Amino acid sequence: MIDTFPHMHRALDEARKAADRGEVPIGAVVVGPNGLVLAAAGNDVVGAKDPTGHAELIAIRQAAKLLGSERLEGCDLYVTLEPCAMCAQAIAFARIRRLYYGADDEKGGGITVGARIFSQKTTHHRPEIYGGILERESAQLLRDFFKTRR
Amino acid sequence: MIDTFPHMHRALDEARKAADRGEVPIGAVVVGPNGLVLAAAGNDVVGAKDPTGHAELIAIRQAAKLLGSERLEGCDLYVTLEPCAMCAQAIAFARIRRLYYGADDEKGGGITVGARIFSQKTTHHRPEIYGGILERESAQLLRDFFKTRR
Repeated sequence: MIDTFPHMHRALDEARKAADRGEVPIGAVVVGPNGLVLAAAGNDVVGAKDPTGHAELIAIRQAAKLLGSERLEGCDLYVTLEPCAMCAQAIAFARIRRLYYGADDEKGGGITVGARIFSQKTTHHRPEIYGGILERESAQLLRDFFKTRR
Repeated sequence: MIDTFPHMHRALDEARKAADRGEVPIGAVVVGPNGLVLAAAGNDVVGAKDPTGHAELIAIRQAAKLLGSERLEGCDLYVTLEPCAMCAQAIAFARIRRLYYGADDEKGGGITVGARIFSQKTTHHRPEIYGGILERESAQLLRDFFKTRR
């Protein structure tokens, strides 16, 4: 069977690994203009003692370091959950070309709710945005994680 | 003469050092509950090839690492310019107690304009906020920097 979203499956793998480390299971992948994976990361807030340790931010920083540029022109980001305002703004700064995400995040999202980063005049770059990619898998991972934590 | 805002002067020093490195002159300082400086940083976007290399984000990450906690309870942040949406959301995640900033940033700010992070229901922590601290010095630094760049 053809995997229509291999990069999102990779992001889901990163999310699962994050859960195994006791982190909220969210994963992200940055893909270069040629289709190669430049960076992949899961949340690392508790382990790294880093309030900014979201999967997207880590993957963006890794990819920028790899490319030797603070702008990821032509690069796409896959993330298993709707990015928060911090990560959405970082996506804008990094000039990400296309953003693919899984489930919406009505409590902490920064795109479809709340800060709505890509609808603000103060945001000077907007990627193409595709939500709902493998959203059931993504949401199930989060539900399973928080169930075991209660 | 008494220095009413020693921490903001320290942040301005960091902003000046950033300008000397060719970075946009913005500086930030994190102060612990006991009044000691935990971290101080200037922008480091171009040098570090990091689209997230804003002074606030770097200082928050440094302080969290130093304290061994992703939450900076009781800590205050001084920054020479109104934080963008990315940094404002990071300030919320880090549970910063008080935010002191210099000039407003009507083009890229995330507090008084645009995303207005601390006015959103999706933001689960709001610091006390004091703007306009040494704003003339802060704004002058930015004007001087962009003048030499044209």
